[in-house]
Amino acid sequence: MATAGKVIKCKAAVAWEAGKPLSIEEVEVAPPQAMEVRVKILYTALCHTDVYFWEAKGQTPVFPRILGHEAGGIVESVGEGVTELAPGDHVLPVFTGECKDCAHCKSEESNMCDLLRINVDRGVMIGDGQSRFTINGKPIFHFVGTSTFSEYTVIHVGCLAKINPEAPLDKVCILSCGISTGLGATLNVAKPKKGQTVAIFGLGAVGLAAMEGARLSGASRIIGVDLNPAKFEQAKKFGCTDFVNPKDHSKPVQEVLIEMTNGGVDRAVECTGNINAMISCFECVHDGWGVAVLVGVPTKEDVFKTHPMNFLNEKTLKGTFFGNYKPRTDLPNVVEMYMRKDLELEKFITHRVPFSQINTAFDLMLKGESLRCIMSMEE
Amino acid sequence: MATAGKVIKCKAAVAWEAGKPLSIEEVEVAPPQAMEVRVKILYTALCHTDVYFWEAKGQTPVFPRILGHEAGGIVESVGEGVTELAPGDHVLPVFTGECKDCAHCKSEESNMCDLLRINVDRGVMIGDGQSRFTINGKPIFHFVGTSTFSEYTVIHVGCLAKINPEAPLDKVCILSCGISTGLGATLNVAKPKKGQTVAIFGLGAVGLAAMEGARLSGASRIIGVDLNPAKFEQAKKFGCTDFVNPKDHSKPVQEVLIEMTNGGVDRAVECTGNINAMISCFECVHDGWGVAVLVGVPTKEDVFKTHPMNFLNEKTLKGTFFGNYKPRTDLPNVVEMYMRKDLELEKFITHRVPFSQINTAFDLMLKGESLRCIMSMEE
Repeated sequence: MATAGKVIKCKAAVAWEAGKPLSIEEVEVAPPQAMEVRVKILYTALCHTDVYFWEAKGQTPVFPRILGHEAGGIVESVGEGVTELAPGDHVLPVFTGECKDCAHCKSEESNMCDLLRINVDRGVMIGDGQSRFTINGKPIFHFVGTSTFSEYTVIHVGCLAKINPEAPLDKVCILSCGISTGLGATLNVAKPKKGQTVAIFGLGAVGLAAMEGARLSGASRIIGVDLNPAKFEQAKKFGCTDFVNPKDHSKPVQEVLIEMTNGGVDRAVECTGNINAMISCFECVHDGWGVAVLVGVPTKEDVFKTHPMNFLNEKTLKGTFFGNYKPRTDLPNVVEMYMRKDLELEKFITHRVPFSQINTAFDLMLKGESLRCIMSMEE
Repeated sequence: MATAGKVIKCKAAVAWEAGKPLSIEEVEVAPPQAMEVRVKILYTALCHTDVYFWEAKGQTPVFPRILGHEAGGIVESVGEGVTELAPGDHVLPVFTGECKDCAHCKSEESNMCDLLRINVDRGVMIGDGQSRFTINGKPIFHFVGTSTFSEYTVIHVGCLAKINPEAPLDKVCILSCGISTGLGATLNVAKPKKGQTVAIFGLGAVGLAAMEGARLSGASRIIGVDLNPAKFEQAKKFGCTDFVNPKDHSKPVQEVLIEMTNGGVDRAVECTGNINAMISCFECVHDGWGVAVLVGVPTKEDVFKTHPMNFLNEKTLKGTFFGNYKPRTDLPNVVEMYMRKDLELEKFITHRVPFSQINTAFDLMLKGESLRCIMSMEE
């Protein structure tokens, strides 16, 4: 590669300060250092988490910063010690990593890598504490180790899943974060059996991905729970058979679900992060065998409260992070689920814009109009 | 059988009122009706639950009553429709049943039979709402469908496990309740892997049975948690490698355990019923893969509180009832674990008294001196 070992100048969308429109700038992208990979991003999507850290209402603001973490790209060059990836490989960047060496990576049950677990406050590379992005020599911060709102980005090798080069990157790029998170919550954690009833709390992209997991598991009844009745129509495409709006009932929604299902749902997945929805999600599952899975991220102040007899009655409560997928080990198989036409990704892609119109993608998400908006870097 | 179809007169220990010593009386035991079995009890043990309902401090008092639910006996006669048991079969009565016909019995995951689930307030047979015990014609109430403090008792066929006739009833009788509850909590629900670290909260008989499950699973480190340091010596026989007394530490015991184990235990089992112990039991497990199991029964007012991020960090919380064993299907196999000399029951049997000295057994338990005291009906 003619560019290997050299600084690359390219376009990136820079967030200069909280809540202000992103600005397309020419940035310098330094070569990858040890255990790092420089990736040419072809497509990036927008996830709520990008918007959340762009708004920076609840966290330490880290600006100027290049956001973005759902994407697909091609390896441009690799740093010292990188043996698993080579230029030309097709990859999905992931906001959390897999070092393959820590207790979590060695455990069959965990995907919460000690070394590369998500860190939203860090704006630099883990190896040397420096940024690989500059504008006129001044550093621009990274975001969750991915910063995919750039034509080129530098990522730790442990945060890149090597995938089938025949997979269309303009579609499978959405498997980088939200869709895998919801899908895995159902397939890997809730694990409904064929014919069971599943409730999904929150019908945004993650909730609909959890619903897609229920459909793929052969659930016979899939109950969507959302405060917005307009979501039901879209959810039907994902297998939703019943819709419950908690606002339509005077009693707690868990009681409504228990009555609808003669004792409770077999599995429930919570994708809103609202603490009351989390409690409802747990309490609505059937005694004896019900499993509830928490996906949505709560605030620091939230407290989960329930009567302990709910546990003694053999209900199980679990949470999940990135759908319990190990990024490097498991994501290539999720891509294959799409290639076999089991997993239907097209349903999630509601909008496409050129990268230059990234602020339109933000607007669509803020208005709640898009599930996923794909940005093409080459347009 | 000469007695079949006739009333049997025999000795029983009657609790005439709350907290007063039991009185050995001659009672009349009616023949079994449809789906019922009359059992000659040979050995009965005493469990905390008997003492709890004898004291009747928290519940509706049901007196006069024949308590007792851990026992071993032989079928004397069977009522109409009973095909699975015949006179001479060796059986363990169980306080909760298995009808084999309801959704719970048909589920692989549940043992909470809809028909025969424990009911502590009911003092009569489920079939006709009558008692089978009388004294001079006046009814004496049953207890949890078993009432084993009697030479003969009548039990629903769904609450009797048919076991290997070669198993010594004076030992396996303790599998009727507490020992199976603790053992199953570890083996069936927590499911530690070989080499893992397990914490057990509460070192009474149920906790030590949970510990026996950890030993049988090949746990490499077994941490006992109890407020009474004297319990450690006894617990060593059950594989306890470390002992933590929460009173010895100023910080919450979950923090102590997390420090001791470099991040948390792999599995934890709570056998006290204290709400703070339940919360500690959950919070002390390792993120990524930790599983906490609640066994101890809380009060009606208790609230389980924790930060929901504990779930999001991939900790699992489950509860169990009777160790998730299905009484009729699974208990015969637990007896075989003892027959193969895997499960060591002798360690639990600290005392033996003749049935006539049943109040001594109550005293020993109230003083905390016994794990299990076996009463022989024929002495």
